[in-house]
Amino acid sequence: MLLASTSTIYGQKYLEYLLEDIKILFSGCEKIIFIPYAQPSGISHIEYTNKAKKVFESLNLNILDYTKDNIKEQLEICDGIFTGGGNTFLLLNKLYEFNLIEDLRYKINSGIPYLGTSAGTNICGLSIGTTNDMPIIHVKSFEALGIIDLNINPHYIDQIEGIEHMGESRKTRINEFHNLNNQLVVGLREGSSLSVMGNDIILTGTKKAVIFKKGNKLFEIETGFNLKNLI
Amino acid sequence: MLLASTSTIYGQKYLEYLLEDIKILFSGCEKIIFIPYAQPSGISHIEYTNKAKKVFESLNLNILDYTKDNIKEQLEICDGIFTGGGNTFLLLNKLYEFNLIEDLRYKINSGIPYLGTSAGTNICGLSIGTTNDMPIIHVKSFEALGIIDLNINPHYIDQIEGIEHMGESRKTRINEFHNLNNQLVVGLREGSSLSVMGNDIILTGTKKAVIFKKGNKLFEIETGFNLKNLI
Repeated sequence: MLLASTSTIYGQKYLEYLLEDIKILFSGCEKIIFIPYAQPSGISHIEYTNKAKKVFESLNLNILDYTKDNIKEQLEICDGIFTGGGNTFLLLNKLYEFNLIEDLRYKINSGIPYLGTSAGTNICGLSIGTTNDMPIIHVKSFEALGIIDLNINPHYIDQIEGIEHMGESRKTRINEFHNLNNQLVVGLREGSSLSVMGNDIILTGTKKAVIFKKGNKLFEIETGFNLKNLI
Repeated sequence: MLLASTSTIYGQKYLEYLLEDIKILFSGCEKIIFIPYAQPSGISHIEYTNKAKKVFESLNLNILDYTKDNIKEQLEICDGIFTGGGNTFLLLNKLYEFNLIEDLRYKINSGIPYLGTSAGTNICGLSIGTTNDMPIIHVKSFEALGIIDLNINPHYIDQIEGIEHMGESRKTRINEFHNLNNQLVVGLREGSSLSVMGNDIILTGTKKAVIFKKGNKLFEIETGFNLKNLI
């Protein structure tokens, strides 16, 4: 699994910085499914699928055509999964609505390659409780796939010095999360990913990640650090 | 009702910029109830109540002592309500858990003075779907008190020029909200409030507010504008 903080880094095209990783991750895959439910800016499922499809095609990788009704069948036969970013509430809402949680969890745990960006990364943690997204739709549970035994905060951003805005900082929000929840939270800066294989959860990319462990002061980890040592 | 975007503006003390308004709003009130459930930074209910109590006392206004078990009774006998900011999910979760939604709505609609800051403002709209807060706890419904027929986005902030962060802007998020919801959304900048009496919903404070009306381009309104004309 490659769990990326974001699909797009500043000044680049969609997925551009991940192309090499995608090539390696999905090498040999012929039936990759794209999960478009997070719908960034309300893009339709079909348009969003085609957007991802186009990038994958440039690497000679095939994403299956979008289907409304046969998603369960596609999920069963696929040999790779990519869940795109957007709104995490909307994504999880649809996974529950279409009864896909168990299938998706089972398929990922079977060991096929999985790529997540932003919301698609967030749902692989224990819950969506550390998303930055607006709750634009209700979800019957915030429990996510739980493929890894922690929570992710994508698009992690440090407090901007000198800003006069009094809304809570990311750090304050995650500390508030820890007043009610126990799991480790990883603040993944844009350009960072978690590379997961078996029990190993390795920080990759160019930036350090921020670790919120309940009861501890936050600290940073370097690229290459294995998070299994913290769980 | 005075619905403030924030309790505290940059460089000032808690509620300092609202003192004159509080004095006028609660003039003659003797039994004001404080609703502390949003617990900013996890402050306890009792500490949070005492923090508000102290400020109100400086204006010779009495906030009732915090009670865990007699909140329904307090709500029945009170002649003023102040709901503090913090985490909106936590606040609404507790209102549902303690079965206070109906009582609170009834009491506010009876016409007694109400002050909300941030989360306490947000819950007076139709839903909490435009909160900026992290979903640190599940809520069985995002439906809020619906005292006013619109949604509020508190701590509204414009996109910061030149920032390289690729997370969604506030504007993008609210537009995503409108892909699934119809109500008017008011982006209330820090220092702004809505002053509500009967059907009138007047923008007060020093800053313009940003209006998101589904299907329209966003626009700004000036202090003194009556939002009833847009609903």
